[in-house]
Amino acid sequence: MKAAIFQGKGKVELGERPDPKIQEPTDAVVRVVMACVCGSDLWYYRGIAERRAGGPIGHEFIGVVEEAGAGVQRIQKGDFVIAPFLYSDGTCPHCQAGMTANCMHGGGWAGDKTDGGQGEAVRVPLADGTLVPVPGSDFSEEMLASLLTLSDVMCTGHHAAVSAGVKEGDTVAVVGDGAVGLCAVIAAKRLGAARIVALSRNPARQKLAAEFGATDIVAERGDEAVEQVMKLTNGIGVDAALECVGTNEAMRTAIGIARPGSIVGTVGLPTDVELPFREMFFKNVGELGGPAPARAYIPELLDDVLSGKINPGRVFDLKTDLENIAEAYAAMDERRAVKSLLRVSEL
Amino acid sequence: MKAAIFQGKGKVELGERPDPKIQEPTDAVVRVVMACVCGSDLWYYRGIAERRAGGPIGHEFIGVVEEAGAGVQRIQKGDFVIAPFLYSDGTCPHCQAGMTANCMHGGGWAGDKTDGGQGEAVRVPLADGTLVPVPGSDFSEEMLASLLTLSDVMCTGHHAAVSAGVKEGDTVAVVGDGAVGLCAVIAAKRLGAARIVALSRNPARQKLAAEFGATDIVAERGDEAVEQVMKLTNGIGVDAALECVGTNEAMRTAIGIARPGSIVGTVGLPTDVELPFREMFFKNVGELGGPAPARAYIPELLDDVLSGKINPGRVFDLKTDLENIAEAYAAMDERRAVKSLLRVSEL
Repeated sequence: MKAAIFQGKGKVELGERPDPKIQEPTDAVVRVVMACVCGSDLWYYRGIAERRAGGPIGHEFIGVVEEAGAGVQRIQKGDFVIAPFLYSDGTCPHCQAGMTANCMHGGGWAGDKTDGGQGEAVRVPLADGTLVPVPGSDFSEEMLASLLTLSDVMCTGHHAAVSAGVKEGDTVAVVGDGAVGLCAVIAAKRLGAARIVALSRNPARQKLAAEFGATDIVAERGDEAVEQVMKLTNGIGVDAALECVGTNEAMRTAIGIARPGSIVGTVGLPTDVELPFREMFFKNVGELGGPAPARAYIPELLDDVLSGKINPGRVFDLKTDLENIAEAYAAMDERRAVKSLLRVSEL
Repeated sequence: MKAAIFQGKGKVELGERPDPKIQEPTDAVVRVVMACVCGSDLWYYRGIAERRAGGPIGHEFIGVVEEAGAGVQRIQKGDFVIAPFLYSDGTCPHCQAGMTANCMHGGGWAGDKTDGGQGEAVRVPLADGTLVPVPGSDFSEEMLASLLTLSDVMCTGHHAAVSAGVKEGDTVAVVGDGAVGLCAVIAAKRLGAARIVALSRNPARQKLAAEFGATDIVAERGDEAVEQVMKLTNGIGVDAALECVGTNEAMRTAIGIARPGSIVGTVGLPTDVELPFREMFFKNVGELGGPAPARAYIPELLDDVLSGKINPGRVFDLKTDLENIAEAYAAMDERRAVKSLLRVSEL
């Protein structure tokens, strides 16, 4: 099959990989319909994170089950499914508690023994626990794009809001205007936030944030952003700050604008972050977050996507295919695109 | 009046200080009935924290209102009151949200302009917001000791449990067997924890922890403590880990035993703590805590103290008076006492 291959810093190519086959009775093989590029893919693309060259990449996809192992019960051949960005058994104590990203027997795509999402097909371990079938069969391109966001980015934005405990009437600030930050705006609004401050200095992203529910835009960064948000909140700070970048500066900003007693929801994949514990302690500001338990979140978010209540697929501003995988990465790397979608096959 | 004075590392003496007087109409003057020494007092006593010599010390006291300023409305001369370890106005947005330790106009005892709790009397700024009158007049010594813990240590243990979100049926671990840790055991039980693991290797403290509600004792430290608690919880970790020490080792232990999705409640005054953010992130473990909003917590805890449901005064194992202030500190410093109580005057 054809699949995207990482060839070293700044180089992603379409190559050949063995066709996925059932290896364990709990496996399924999924033909990929749509996949996409994640902001976190840029870390190795840019050489900031280590990654061995020559292997598969991508961890977000939706597709159709081509084959299910003998032990798979809940998923059937022909099901149209969403694959969360991590696989999980759904039965261990962490999964049962809703923390599927920390499944005791789970793992990730594009590893030594797993396929990447940016390819024609994927062997899915623990298919019963992992895959979420989508009811229906007739979906617009826009709807498919929104369903694809449930694989990672929409669930990750939701995780920021859930971790920070966003509730009805809250004032929320979202630090980061990438696809995750934009989805965090959707999530905050969905959970009832009365006021949503989006920190963004990119006009197109500011506009989308506002359409998603942001009531205030702060274009400043660093100390000036903190000053501005504090001014907007009469010196109180926000009820929930959502850190959707993963840099030290973004984290400092989030902590700086969080009111005493609040929790910074952290979902930005950490790069150079060092938590200022003494500052947080004396301010009574905490933090919680990590890889989103997408599998646990998908069902409730799926309802809102299917009903059209939320349209997170709008974060995709470049739509291409596997043949153009290099451009999909380059456009995001060069900030020409917020997030690149890959149409891999017909539903 | 007589008051304890810090004279430099390892040296605390009884000295003379000016009699407190009403300075602002919102002040009250409280005659101290009981005071005590805090674990955090040891930081400067031991020379670990900076503190100017020659000034007053102590931040925990209960007493009787001798005089109330013209603007004080809720508190009257003759009231028997509990003073939280920080004063607060009760009206600013942070106080209104229950975060009285972060009052926008509040402050602490034994500062440049405030008296210390370890003395015969204290001028209390913002008396209406700060002081909590105790109904009744006939209290046993044991009851008075329990009421005194509401000034700080019991509220601080409660803050660890509240910050970590302890709820009915939880498995909770308390890292630290000092007075705060022991009170955290009381707090966890009070909030409905089904299982409480106390980390302690001191037999007397283990015994008290068990009497307060600890169901399991782990005597190991560091990695071995983590291993032991993980074994006790079938590899899952605890629903809430309460960090009641303030050292890096204690924090690492707390994070190590916290299950994914949980929050480490942090109330140990931080010394050398560096949060391992990447570990916390990938484990989906957060932290929240800081100085306890004692003023906000006192009313509900007071009910349980007065009814005899909780007896946090049992953490005091040395009872002396102002004349013996040096011994009160030395005994705690040399770990001969968990916490020293000072009987200053009759109720």
